[in-house]
Amino acid sequence: MKSLIAAAHTPFDEKGKLQLSVIPEYASYLKKSGLNGVFVNGTTGEGVSLSREERIETAAAWLDQQSDDFRVLVHVGHNSIAEAQTLAEHAQEHDASGIAAMSPTYFKPNDAIELVRFNAQIAASASSIPFYYYHFPALTDVHISVRDFLAQVLGDIPNLKGVKFTHYDLMDLKLSMEFSEGRFEFFFGLDEILLSALILGVSGAVGSTFNYMAHLLMTLVDHFENRRLEEAKECQIRAMKIINVIHRYGGSARVGKTILRNCGLNLGQPRLPLRKLSIQEESSFLREIQELGFDQYTIRSLNSAP
Amino acid sequence: MKSLIAAAHTPFDEKGKLQLSVIPEYASYLKKSGLNGVFVNGTTGEGVSLSREERIETAAAWLDQQSDDFRVLVHVGHNSIAEAQTLAEHAQEHDASGIAAMSPTYFKPNDAIELVRFNAQIAASASSIPFYYYHFPALTDVHISVRDFLAQVLGDIPNLKGVKFTHYDLMDLKLSMEFSEGRFEFFFGLDEILLSALILGVSGAVGSTFNYMAHLLMTLVDHFENRRLEEAKECQIRAMKIINVIHRYGGSARVGKTILRNCGLNLGQPRLPLRKLSIQEESSFLREIQELGFDQYTIRSLNSAP
Amino acid sequence: MKSLIAAAHTPFDEKGKLQLSVIPEYASYLKKSGLNGVFVNGTTGEGVSLSREERIETAAAWLDQQSDDFRVLVHVGHNSIAEAQTLAEHAQEHDASGIAAMSPTYFKPNDAIELVRFNAQIAASASSIPFYYYHFPALTDVHISVRDFLAQVLGDIPNLKGVKFTHYDLMDLKLSMEFSEGRFEFFFGLDEILLSALILGVSGAVGSTFNYMAHLLMTLVDHFENRRLEEAKECQIRAMKIINVIHRYGGSARVGKTILRNCGLNLGQPRLPLRKLSIQEESSFLREIQELGFDQYTIRSLNSAP
Amino acid sequence: MKSLIAAAHTPFDEKGKLQLSVIPEYASYLKKSGLNGVFVNGTTGEGVSLSREERIETAAAWLDQQSDDFRVLVHVGHNSIAEAQTLAEHAQEHDASGIAAMSPTYFKPNDAIELVRFNAQIAASASSIPFYYYHFPALTDVHISVRDFLAQVLGDIPNLKGVKFTHYDLMDLKLSMEFSEGRFEFFFGLDEILLSALILGVSGAVGSTFNYMAHLLMTLVDHFENRRLEEAKECQIRAMKIINVIHRYGGSARVGKTILRNCGLNLGQPRLPLRKLSIQEESSFLREIQELGFDQYTIRSLNSAP
Repeated sequence: MKSLIAAAHTPFDEKGKLQLSVIPEYASYLKKSGLNGVFVNGTTGEGVSLSREERIETAAAWLDQQSDDFRVLVHVGHNSIAEAQTLAEHAQEHDASGIAAMSPTYFKPNDAIELVRFNAQIAASASSIPFYYYHFPALTDVHISVRDFLAQVLGDIPNLKGVKFTHYDLMDLKLSMEFSEGRFEFFFGLDEILLSALILGVSGAVGSTFNYMAHLLMTLVDHFENRRLEEAKECQIRAMKIINVIHRYGGSARVGKTILRNCGLNLGQPRLPLRKLSIQEESSFLREIQELGFDQYTIRSLNSAP
Repeated sequence: MKSLIAAAHTPFDEKGKLQLSVIPEYASYLKKSGLNGVFVNGTTGEGVSLSREERIETAAAWLDQQSDDFRVLVHVGHNSIAEAQTLAEHAQEHDASGIAAMSPTYFKPNDAIELVRFNAQIAASASSIPFYYYHFPALTDVHISVRDFLAQVLGDIPNLKGVKFTHYDLMDLKLSMEFSEGRFEFFFGLDEILLSALILGVSGAVGSTFNYMAHLLMTLVDHFENRRLEEAKECQIRAMKIINVIHRYGGSARVGKTILRNCGLNLGQPRLPLRKLSIQEESSFLREIQELGFDQYTIRSLNSAP
Repeated sequence: MKSLIAAAHTPFDEKGKLQLSVIPEYASYLKKSGLNGVFVNGTTGEGVSLSREERIETAAAWLDQQSDDFRVLVHVGHNSIAEAQTLAEHAQEHDASGIAAMSPTYFKPNDAIELVRFNAQIAASASSIPFYYYHFPALTDVHISVRDFLAQVLGDIPNLKGVKFTHYDLMDLKLSMEFSEGRFEFFFGLDEILLSALILGVSGAVGSTFNYMAHLLMTLVDHFENRRLEEAKECQIRAMKIINVIHRYGGSARVGKTILRNCGLNLGQPRLPLRKLSIQEESSFLREIQELGFDQYTIRSLNSAP
Repeated sequence: MKSLIAAAHTPFDEKGKLQLSVIPEYASYLKKSGLNGVFVNGTTGEGVSLSREERIETAAAWLDQQSDDFRVLVHVGHNSIAEAQTLAEHAQEHDASGIAAMSPTYFKPNDAIELVRFNAQIAASASSIPFYYYHFPALTDVHISVRDFLAQVLGDIPNLKGVKFTHYDLMDLKLSMEFSEGRFEFFFGLDEILLSALILGVSGAVGSTFNYMAHLLMTLVDHFENRRLEEAKECQIRAMKIINVIHRYGGSARVGKTILRNCGLNLGQPRLPLRKLSIQEESSFLREIQELGFDQYTIRSLNSAP
């Protein structure tokens, strides 16, 4: 059984303010989709674009939806350890399923030692809940391998429980899994090549497209687990084609809300520095993914979700 | 007359907490050095590594030292516009000489339009004081030219007053100056090649090494202004050799405090993710710069500063 | 049935001169290993480090070993189209199974149009034999997607038959395969994650480690084709661990010959700019891969190859 | 007295073949412009895009124009040492004023040791004439500092006479000059910031825009040497604005021939992978540089060159 988690968008109203009132509906929809949890205030959630209070309030609203079969992981990564610790402490007070942090991105660690030390201070401030290292070199531009990070951790992060691995380097993913000998959980973060990670034994995923392609991706996983490889591959191709369009329009954090709004869930627009889609872009974007069969194959509408 | 400004370090105590009590002495020393101001909470000040309250308190402590001939520029750049605005509003309330912001570094602007929109929202929250754009591609990894930024600004940032230009691209620097037709102030940020910018007509500098090489750099400027080009070049070479050592040891934000402590001003150690120098590194670093004649030629001691 | 091809090293003597006399033995060994061909003068073969005559002579020596079930693909890529054409014409005269070329690497194409035009001129000079595009962004630093290249090709390269895809971007690999609708052959080039490409339907591989891990990789493929996914994964992990060591020592082009020499096939040392291993490096490198079980699991010795 | 050298374009006819017959006229024009030599088969000359024979023939044609006051430096850099040596030997046989080579660009040196070893073998094959190291990280993507290169050279390149330094890092330029203690000649390669290098003491330049802005750049140098800094700056600004347009249209290697043709010297079009300008691009490019006063201030026409 895999652990499939949606990277949650942060809901804004028309003026760009937090609109937390929509979170219960959003959570209910994700639960009905069969997902096992959410990853809050991460890249998709534009966590770094939120104020401290916004991050805390958003986390709190999601933590209200946490249950035994619906984990809430709170991303607390920040260039300032002090700020990250405040967020971590809050998550711990509310019994989050775990926190996650990434590398700092302005002053970049030169090696695994510096990367571990930075994260160790954050992890220590919420030592009673699990800590996950969030590896996303495409945005952090920090290319220290997870394998090196784990080898350096030793006892420095006692609550380390796993890694959100959002990178193409499947060799580093697998070598890290081997190194961990089952002690750590690995969430793969590139939905477009999920199948290529599944065959290496990854047991979980945190992805932005689980917001609107959960059915498709869960079908992919089901096919894979039952050794229907051709069918799994077909699911992967469908997902990949849609994600390719998403990339051309600027990525999930920018366009994911457009898809969800089109499905009946209005989470507002992304914030600067992400530029919201123009009306024309929105129209052509939706047409492109619909031409790839988005409606039929990937999502069950919010109303009809089982 | 040039405007020469020190990029201030942020003082920490032995436990790494803010130690603002040292700022009056620090300011007095910089004023006696003949400098025209400080740039607070920037890269040298590890601004992004501070909590919001720390940034505000640090800014406030420096703003207490502001005077007609000693400007205090407060860097408020942040990945979150909301956080940057809070910092900007504080600076405005305390009548800062100006604020500065850089590009966001996690979600990177794709073009000058996005870069301007982001900064415009920050600038607008402190519209009664000058706004400076802080260009530092080596750390932001955002390579949109300043010339393009300025051409895009139009009326979108009415309080734009200048640019802190910390980059090797002197063509972009000069074309930006030409484009601005004197409307904007340009502070050059690479002390190691200041002379090469002076000859292009730059009228100011914000640099980390003004903390401990103000005498040398001001002598350089004086020689240049009086057309003693050979002497100016000699000063530049001295500075350059020392800065080269600073770079090899990790840069000013990491090692500048070591120099100042050695000169009698204890500002503590840098914060993670910057790794403080080991005792051995500190010793060899100081020896290397002393072998380059650091004591004699570059600094007058804190006690003897005129 | 997969098509598995070794990226051949170029044999040098003790003075670093070509030693083509060893090629029949080398070819015989690869054939006995069950491989379907060789890729000559590519990255592993240090093609760009050879003179024109050396490339021609090396290609000729390998082409003598070509047979119905042992393809010889000749890499003719060069920054100079004229030089590449000379190599291509030679390959055609000797009825090579195909030629391959990569992007130029000094003046880099700005888009797929320029990339196609460059390769089209090379392909046209050997129009009666298949042309393969060699995609290796890690070394060329040209990141134009293969999907874009194929979409641009249209009728401009009538003899285009496939792609040697040496990159982590499995989404681009699969979208390119989908786009080609079976018209093109795809050779995957990263042996360390071959399984992750196989599950996406790739039908061939060109890899450097087939020189010494053919048995292991062919076993991997066999397990995969017979749906023994756990066993296939175990093979992949073994290969990956060894390749990880190879990477740490500078990559296959640098250290592959050390392995082969240790197995009884002396191909000399790599050429500058690749630095040959010191005796100490050689010793520790071999020990590291042996500790990973290299001898037992990956290679059958040259003498005992079936 | 400065040494000012034009980076020569390679003349092609309408079919893209070498047209060496134009070189005497081209050389005569450059000599009349007051230049001290040419740099042949470099980046501007598209050296890497030529065949070996074309490089040799082009070098030979230029070497026929060599005289006591008109140096001919031949770039022999190549990914293959063997090819570079052939070119170097030819240059030596024809008593070239010197040869130059850059870093290999496919297999990139990891450190100064590898970079020196590579170049030492090339330099040794023409040991009776001067060798210049050609540093151009923007195209080679090799960022080993010249300072490190020189420190590593020691006695390994006895005929090392200087460096063609084409990079923004003026600190490395100056530290390298200091390190050399006058033993080496430094040619600066970024005409757009020549003044910023002159003030650091550089004594020569090799640039592409000397082909058509020699008058302007020599006036700049003359003003600088006579301490007319404002006038020198004005010349630099003019040059900079034009070079900025050249950059936007793809750089000198791509568009320089368009300028020269417009001035009456037809050198044909650039070769793939450089894309020749469309008629529309050519027209708008020429209009843009003319609007910046190109005709009046920068070039004297071929006919009227003094």
